[in-house]
Amino acid sequence: MPVFRIDLGYDGSGFHGYARNHGVRTIQGELESALERILGAPIESAVAGRTDAGVHARHQVASFETEQAADPERLEKSLRSLLAPEIAVQSVAVADAGFHARFSARARRYCYFVDTGVPPDPLQRHRRWSMPGPIDVSAMQQAAAAFVGTHDFASFCRAQEGRSTERTVLAAGWKGEDTLARFDVAATAFCHQMVRSMVALCVEVGRGRVASDDVPAILEARDRNAARGAAPPHGLTLWEVEY
Amino acid sequence: MPVFRIDLGYDGSGFHGYARNHGVRTIQGELESALERILGAPIESAVAGRTDAGVHARHQVASFETEQAADPERLEKSLRSLLAPEIAVQSVAVADAGFHARFSARARRYCYFVDTGVPPDPLQRHRRWSMPGPIDVSAMQQAAAAFVGTHDFASFCRAQEGRSTERTVLAAGWKGEDTLARFDVAATAFCHQMVRSMVALCVEVGRGRVASDDVPAILEARDRNAARGAAPPHGLTLWEVEY
Repeated sequence: MPVFRIDLGYDGSGFHGYARNHGVRTIQGELESALERILGAPIESAVAGRTDAGVHARHQVASFETEQAADPERLEKSLRSLLAPEIAVQSVAVADAGFHARFSARARRYCYFVDTGVPPDPLQRHRRWSMPGPIDVSAMQQAAAAFVGTHDFASFCRAQEGRSTERTVLAAGWKGEDTLARFDVAATAFCHQMVRSMVALCVEVGRGRVASDDVPAILEARDRNAARGAAPPHGLTLWEVEY
Repeated sequence: MPVFRIDLGYDGSGFHGYARNHGVRTIQGELESALERILGAPIESAVAGRTDAGVHARHQVASFETEQAADPERLEKSLRSLLAPEIAVQSVAVADAGFHARFSARARRYCYFVDTGVPPDPLQRHRRWSMPGPIDVSAMQQAAAAFVGTHDFASFCRAQEGRSTERTVLAAGWKGEDTLARFDVAATAFCHQMVRSMVALCVEVGRGRVASDDVPAILEARDRNAARGAAPPHGLTLWEVEY
């Protein structure tokens, strides 16, 4: 059976997350409904990153197997004409046998945007967390350095019973320009709420409420209560998936 | 009577334009309602640029006179807390006597964004006109050069009986980067739909449907039918007002 790979981006504002969920509008639901309409058979798709409600994607990857004959170029055009303008199908291709959007992915990169402007930019408010006032980006950069490497990220993950919270962070850093602070983080995989929990803690460091030197101990505590909750979803964008 | 000056920006997506209009949501309506609530008296305000429905502002200026005693800093804070997040009050100040947001303005600058990506960026779709496919930005730049100077822009203005359509364009040009083309135009003042009509024609030039050499004749025709209609409002942003 041929495996199809779909590269896509989306504005997550009007969706209850990526994962199909009965009775609510989701990216996966829209995508699979469109595929079923085009191919005439129900489709079950895999995805690189199951983004939460309100989280966006600049680059996301889905895959599915089907017995239906389908030309990837025509599938691409049909998907574009059926899907809402919030979902941008970048490409549809036949992948190598055994390709799986989730299990074949080697790394995911996320970006988080914090708008420190007073007032924040109204034209970007759907994709930046408004946190008005000065913020110490170099202290946040120091805090983020502690995340790099293989650690048990239990302090930064919403508990899911029986699942390991050990992850390998490949790179993590903050950049600031005018009233925009941007967090870039890459990992082989992330656990649930991990990026947003890192951001919430880093922002507390940037506002002088937590010392950057305290971040390693918070990580080592392996205790969700040791961190500082999670930043809101709309500031988060899945930036790129690597295979 | 003191004159107050309000500098603001907004996401025009959810508004029926700037100008107050009975029964519909407008920027001026929201602003004046908030001012009346704060000051306890009805307010009539002037504005630098009466943007159409769907048009945004990075920098817009409003002004009003009032007999009510008001501290500009407190007014600023109160406005921010009352107004919707689509409207960003950047500053409130007491202006010089005689200041008028419209009549004192020396120049207005607008930007128009065209997304030529296939697919367009879903996260910016509320502020860019999607026109997928290759576009010749240097031909558009040549076309735009014809606009600079004092001309009768009747070909580019929605007719308003008895009103002059002579305007002075100070600068006009296109820049392209990847799949984004950006039009920058400054004038002492604009007539209705002037920027969007310029954009529609330039995009036709960029797509090879009109020669850039034909633009001066279209301008000289002083005939609305000689141009190419108006580009959609959501790609347009009032960028800056100069006094």
